[in-house]
Amino acid sequence: MKKPLILVTNDDGIAAPGIRALIDVASSIGEVVVVAPDSPQSGMGHAITISDPIRLRKVQVFPDIESYECSGTPVDCVKLAKNVVLKDREIDLCVSGINHGSNASINIIYSGTLSAAMEASLEHIPSIGFSLLDYNFDADFEPSKPYIGELIRYVLEHGMEDGSLLNVNIPSIPAEDIQGMRVCRQADARWVEEFQEAKDPRGQHYYWLTGRFVNEDQKEDTDIWALENGYISIVPSMHDLTNYRAINSMKDIDRITVET
Amino acid sequence: MKKPLILVTNDDGIAAPGIRALIDVASSIGEVVVVAPDSPQSGMGHAITISDPIRLRKVQVFPDIESYECSGTPVDCVKLAKNVVLKDREIDLCVSGINHGSNASINIIYSGTLSAAMEASLEHIPSIGFSLLDYNFDADFEPSKPYIGELIRYVLEHGMEDGSLLNVNIPSIPAEDIQGMRVCRQADARWVEEFQEAKDPRGQHYYWLTGRFVNEDQKEDTDIWALENGYISIVPSMHDLTNYRAINSMKDIDRITVET
Repeated sequence: MKKPLILVTNDDGIAAPGIRALIDVASSIGEVVVVAPDSPQSGMGHAITISDPIRLRKVQVFPDIESYECSGTPVDCVKLAKNVVLKDREIDLCVSGINHGSNASINIIYSGTLSAAMEASLEHIPSIGFSLLDYNFDADFEPSKPYIGELIRYVLEHGMEDGSLLNVNIPSIPAEDIQGMRVCRQADARWVEEFQEAKDPRGQHYYWLTGRFVNEDQKEDTDIWALENGYISIVPSMHDLTNYRAINSMKDIDRITVET
Repeated sequence: MKKPLILVTNDDGIAAPGIRALIDVASSIGEVVVVAPDSPQSGMGHAITISDPIRLRKVQVFPDIESYECSGTPVDCVKLAKNVVLKDREIDLCVSGINHGSNASINIIYSGTLSAAMEASLEHIPSIGFSLLDYNFDADFEPSKPYIGELIRYVLEHGMEDGSLLNVNIPSIPAEDIQGMRVCRQADARWVEEFQEAKDPRGQHYYWLTGRFVNEDQKEDTDIWALENGYISIVPSMHDLTNYRAINSMKDIDRITVET
């Protein structure tokens, strides 16, 4: 049987340990091609590069793995992979990560890791974003690997609803403490911002974005609950942002007439 | 009665004509404070600035309107407005735009205009993103104004489901040809990318992102249908990206056991 073609990307950049761990797993299952940012792109959300040219360079970073670094955002990487690097081939799966730090709950909308996976889903490529709840450079990705392998095999075998992606977060705990995997919904949490103010040598103010994650959604069907209880959380996600429930409640707008 | 406090932002930058048109309308209804990017930020999606400091400068751009320009993304602007500029006040409404160009359908995920509105919705502030289907600097925003006024008044009066925002797109046609407003869903369309390749003076390749908007979702309940038929499209949108339907179909993942 032909090996599946797996595109690997991330948002921490091609030199981050997390992507190396993901390549380890993916290359044991399929043929891997890497297109990843040449520098960290955390917090880039679904940004694309439209006012600047984008560079794409073939590099040797991983033994025997065809790899490219890109000057653009994670979403640019997926677009270039699909339309330039692999334009004559069918990509069976896109995996993004392993991100250094959580992308659970509302973090999905700020995350370059997940936006890359979402972009792949727009291209009808099944895709998964993986994140480990540990921001450290020397985080231990080993306990995650068997689960990541299972999920990659599951999606390759079962496929995925078109336009969907999986947001997978992994608790940073020893392998023996992981309780298993749970398919769940995005918790309704958010960041409460606390800007740090400072002055430059010329006396001008500037701000650093900082903040505190606040979750008042304590139900057991959420990703935050799963993670706090030792499970790997899996949220099937999508790019249709329509609030269908609100369509009905606002239909009276259709009947507003305007004097022009 | 106290005037409502309306935060105005955009992604084309504080000097773009579109934001001026939006301020004209908003300031006829409420007290307006502007916090907008100091340069164009189109295509920034839900990007936030975490690796660089952010500048915020009070400026005089619009007569009698308290205004600030910000070096960050549209999402940064909303965070700074809420947490620094207006931290002791309650914001009644956030309006973003008027964007020069469509943000209908899948454009919502790439759009700084809509990401600013979404960020406000996360802060429990009712919010609306407005876009005119005309990329030109000298686009005619006049026909849009009465409709924008109606929508601002509607949301101020009726409120909005918490966590929701409105994605409003306006066809670029004469006032007398506008058929009215339609509450609808996001069409399932996407961009088909066609990178333009070039070489720099040193012979190195680079790419410009370009593309073609493709919509195979021809149903009458979509924003694209509304716009093509002379209506202003209004899509109630949200930041919960969970694909609830897929949760059930993937629940067997919960039962996978992994050797560690």
